[in-house]
Amino acid sequence: MKHIKLVIGYDGTDFHGFQRQKGLRTVQEELERTLTILLRHPVRVKAAGRTDTGVHAEGQVVSFWTSCPIPVERLPLALNSLLPSDIVAKKANQVSPNFHPRFDATSRVYRYLIDNRPTPSALLRRYAWHIPEPLNVEAMKQAAQYLLGVHDFASFHASGSDLGSTVREMKRIAVVKRGGVISITMEANAFLYHMARIIVGTLVEIGLGQREPEEMHSILEARDRSVAGKTAPPHGLCLMQVKYGKRRCTNHGTAEGGREAF
Amino acid sequence: MKHIKLVIGYDGTDFHGFQRQKGLRTVQEELERTLTILLRHPVRVKAAGRTDTGVHAEGQVVSFWTSCPIPVERLPLALNSLLPSDIVAKKANQVSPNFHPRFDATSRVYRYLIDNRPTPSALLRRYAWHIPEPLNVEAMKQAAQYLLGVHDFASFHASGSDLGSTVREMKRIAVVKRGGVISITMEANAFLYHMARIIVGTLVEIGLGQREPEEMHSILEARDRSVAGKTAPPHGLCLMQVKYGKRRCTNHGTAEGGREAF
Repeated sequence: MKHIKLVIGYDGTDFHGFQRQKGLRTVQEELERTLTILLRHPVRVKAAGRTDTGVHAEGQVVSFWTSCPIPVERLPLALNSLLPSDIVAKKANQVSPNFHPRFDATSRVYRYLIDNRPTPSALLRRYAWHIPEPLNVEAMKQAAQYLLGVHDFASFHASGSDLGSTVREMKRIAVVKRGGVISITMEANAFLYHMARIIVGTLVEIGLGQREPEEMHSILEARDRSVAGKTAPPHGLCLMQVKYGKRRCTNHGTAEGGREAF
Repeated sequence: MKHIKLVIGYDGTDFHGFQRQKGLRTVQEELERTLTILLRHPVRVKAAGRTDTGVHAEGQVVSFWTSCPIPVERLPLALNSLLPSDIVAKKANQVSPNFHPRFDATSRVYRYLIDNRPTPSALLRRYAWHIPEPLNVEAMKQAAQYLLGVHDFASFHASGSDLGSTVREMKRIAVVKRGGVISITMEANAFLYHMARIIVGTLVEIGLGQREPEEMHSILEARDRSVAGKTAPPHGLCLMQVKYGKRRCTNHGTAEGGREAF
């Protein structure tokens, strides 16, 4: 039996999220069905994270076991010939038996796109939140800096979800405008439920001048979801990369996820 | 009666091209149906160009007549509330009675996207041609220069179509690589049938090292479709902008098309 780590991408538009749900089209169900056909035995995958309905991925990581003798480096091409066109297999590696795509991850990189032009792009409508009012990008950049470092992100945590500690480390947050499109890239050790989208919703209110950039500090301090901004819609969000620690990883830089050093 | 110029965008994936065809979903049919509902009288549009099945637009231009008193500047927002999500109305202006979106156009700008990474992006699969083998962008840039200026583009003209002269002026051609994505932007006074896609197909063969950049010169000279490269697939192509002459236009620079000076 081999333990395989697989990097996948998907267009979340037509899925009810990653996780299997009875009677609904999900990424997990389509992926497991395809793996089961290709590998000729039942396959269950573990994932680095469960993306919500409408959220996309360019670098989701899953793992599974197989007894199939197909060479691991041929798996992506073989899978892509069988997968529906909105899921792409990017890279496969054999990993140690105790590898876990979620618990071994040291950080996740999410990107949120905002189409900030008077009228929406027809080609970005599935992948970007269209906001016609011009956003103050400098104010958003300034506000984002308050989030860097280790904080209690309880204010950016969807209510109803209780998973213990709400302390996370934001390692990087970049707000960049190119053409009429603003991208917000966030890297944290882990994200709370809806955290990326609540951060974006709050940054947008600051960009619209409804709040001052300095408010970000008091929002963090409040540890209260009701003081933060609205939750941004899911379709602008994309899981770009999941990184694994130095002990497991030789390459941090690619959008396809780190390469396993086993 | 008012004569209206309307700039639209669309995701061509789920359309059988722009032009009305009985029993098939086309951009023209959806647009005319929506205009007819909004304006409360039958509407027929004229377009700057007929894009093929699968080809996208960010700056297609149409015109139509209306007796509806709705203010022209409110048209895009009103239309967007009624249009299917894969068509976007971007900008409306009243124009002179003799304006013609096709015959008055002085140039068209097309962009072709190539996803040139080992495995395809899940988010670009509808909008870019995935070529896993690394392309030599410098060779493609060099070859593209031969196309600049006034030439007989008969070698880049799909056979079977006969429209008289095959002489066109290529005003600009830019090959740019950013990340793993190559964009080829072409501006010409007009394009022959499949011309943009045959140029891209030929540039790709040069990028793959199957032909030398200098061959572009002899391909042009041959005036023979059979010597040029294959036709690139439609889904990488997007009509970005239609420009109108100085007499009609005050603004050339935006992706939404020039503003009418009437």
